[in-house]
Amino acid sequence: MTFWHFDKIDDLKGDWLFPTETRFGAGRIKELPSILASLNMSRPLIVTDRGLTATPLPELVRSTAAQTGTPLLWAEADQNPTGSQVVAGTKAFHDHHADGVIALGGGSGLDCGKAVALLAGLGGDLWRFAYPRSLEVQAERSPVPIVAIPTTAGTGAEVEASSIITNEEIPVKAGIVNLSMMPKVVIADPELTVGLPANLTAWTGMDALSHNLEALVVRQFHPMADAIGAVGVKMCHDWLPVAVANGRDLTARSYMMAAAIMGATSFVKGLGAMHALSHAIGALVGSQHGLTNAVLMPYVLEFNRPAIEQPVASLAAYMKLEPSFDAYLAHVKALSRTVGIPTRITDLGVKRQDFERLAAMALPDFNAGTNPRKLDVPSLVSILQAAS
Amino acid sequence: MTFWHFDKIDDLKGDWLFPTETRFGAGRIKELPSILASLNMSRPLIVTDRGLTATPLPELVRSTAAQTGTPLLWAEADQNPTGSQVVAGTKAFHDHHADGVIALGGGSGLDCGKAVALLAGLGGDLWRFAYPRSLEVQAERSPVPIVAIPTTAGTGAEVEASSIITNEEIPVKAGIVNLSMMPKVVIADPELTVGLPANLTAWTGMDALSHNLEALVVRQFHPMADAIGAVGVKMCHDWLPVAVANGRDLTARSYMMAAAIMGATSFVKGLGAMHALSHAIGALVGSQHGLTNAVLMPYVLEFNRPAIEQPVASLAAYMKLEPSFDAYLAHVKALSRTVGIPTRITDLGVKRQDFERLAAMALPDFNAGTNPRKLDVPSLVSILQAAS
Repeated sequence: MTFWHFDKIDDLKGDWLFPTETRFGAGRIKELPSILASLNMSRPLIVTDRGLTATPLPELVRSTAAQTGTPLLWAEADQNPTGSQVVAGTKAFHDHHADGVIALGGGSGLDCGKAVALLAGLGGDLWRFAYPRSLEVQAERSPVPIVAIPTTAGTGAEVEASSIITNEEIPVKAGIVNLSMMPKVVIADPELTVGLPANLTAWTGMDALSHNLEALVVRQFHPMADAIGAVGVKMCHDWLPVAVANGRDLTARSYMMAAAIMGATSFVKGLGAMHALSHAIGALVGSQHGLTNAVLMPYVLEFNRPAIEQPVASLAAYMKLEPSFDAYLAHVKALSRTVGIPTRITDLGVKRQDFERLAAMALPDFNAGTNPRKLDVPSLVSILQAAS
Repeated sequence: MTFWHFDKIDDLKGDWLFPTETRFGAGRIKELPSILASLNMSRPLIVTDRGLTATPLPELVRSTAAQTGTPLLWAEADQNPTGSQVVAGTKAFHDHHADGVIALGGGSGLDCGKAVALLAGLGGDLWRFAYPRSLEVQAERSPVPIVAIPTTAGTGAEVEASSIITNEEIPVKAGIVNLSMMPKVVIADPELTVGLPANLTAWTGMDALSHNLEALVVRQFHPMADAIGAVGVKMCHDWLPVAVANGRDLTARSYMMAAAIMGATSFVKGLGAMHALSHAIGALVGSQHGLTNAVLMPYVLEFNRPAIEQPVASLAAYMKLEPSFDAYLAHVKALSRTVGIPTRITDLGVKRQDFERLAAMALPDFNAGTNPRKLDVPSLVSILQAAS
């Protein structure tokens, strides 16, 4: 529920203009041909991840796109897509003489597709777009248009202009950032998420929560982002347990898909230690990103408490909890339990002897700088210790 | 106050990316030269309204722009700018060999400047961009870049892609709509509003409230716009009385400038009978737009009550009022009294014998279609009768 209490599926539809053009609602995948035509995309490369090929979705999108052109499906992205996969996807783009990218998937397919569109349009070395080097080449703009089609409700990658790509040589999960990676049109069709298993529903949904929540507590005057983030947090608490319990509940799927978009819209403010540590842990042990954020969430909140008591208490008041940090913290721990999130990073395969290394990896992450409390290696180690 | 409770002026700053690039904060007008350089604008036409020439602002902007190029000031827009003024401004643009527009002012200067940029880039007849004909020429895009600098906190025209221009021949206040009218960069500097007299502060501030409120009650699933609108409504209630009582309070001026941006961001959903009637009344008797909205506000809320009790009660709950339509209605009437808004449209010079004509003018207005209750001439007349 938000300020309007809609629950009929016909009401849960909309055409949104910001942060990018979004066609939201069940069944809207059928608008893909007219969208491709309006963008003059007749030879799209559909980029997605291997995991999705076990579902009917890639073929659904390919055959729908084929109504108006000649799509090619390229489904070689990993769960944590790598630089060499982006290079391979770019080769596929050129071999197909493609004129645009359909980025399809959860974060993996979307991030890989967006990076392929960037590299296909601009060429050269992908890593010059990795933060912070990206700041020096901001003026470069890829002309390759992107249509984004999310198949999970979590990442929000469909409405923002960056990708997380693993640089295997270091290893590090790098933030590739360029404004031309913002999709031109998003088809946010909750029906595409009804087949997502309960565990992935929970993990991706907690990722959406982590975006809304972690952006909200970035200390910066951005009342629009904060308004969106607070409502997004409440939506996750209201609807994630419903979606996990019954994946076919399209109302819950719709609200979670909206919450995912809201998370990525609000995190233009930046994120914090949840994401900095999660990227490091993901790069080292390959754990799922949303799950990793979810495990870290209460520990990072506790660490940041001295700097965020006030906005978290305001959030609790809006959610009709007791207006205190502790009330919200208890609420988020209860949600984690309900949707089956483990409570320790050791459950993800993280080993104590790697804490120093993980902290050193997390500190230069592009999200560490906006954490509400200043971070250093000892403070990051202390969060990992508390979480183990 | 929003989710973060900032009150120091150094905290009330931010760089926002949506709905368009915005440099928000006191003193940021000094960034104008670097912004013009980044847009390759060396010969900007500064479009503003006659009323503003009594203030130091046009010369401040001209001299600041002159640090990096050759600006020309054109200050011929009326309070309700007309089509012939847009044509004259376009001639001034070409005579100056201008390469961009700085739209400066309240709604009048901003709307006129945005329309000049549209017509200067595309030529031909301005009225083809008037809603609903605008829908047929959506694909036309003016290449003329716009920098918007608001000098009031109300219209929000600085962050949206339409202008209200009076077609004197009919007369009607037409909605000129084209996506290329979205400013590329906004400088939202609350210091530029400290000289605004108390009455104009109240009227423009009530305009900001009307946008946030009337967009919120448009029945459409857009949780991001609704979140922004609800917080924008609360900001107006919290800060407009402060800004009216003490125009030099930069904290209040900052919150009101943010609330104005939030109103226009949320009204991508559409507006309703307040604006449809206000445009008709403004075209007929020339009353100030925000003041006219403010007078109409409680009567339109009452008319729409059967369709909007639920979202208004949700809004009241968020604002920590009793969660009911009546509680919010009483709250908004109290705000109107506090800031000196008259209670009757007859106080604006509207005559009873014109009600039918005004209703007939309001019905085809581009905001009438999104009013929560379906409108017709008799229902619009009934609102005018209640308000007189």
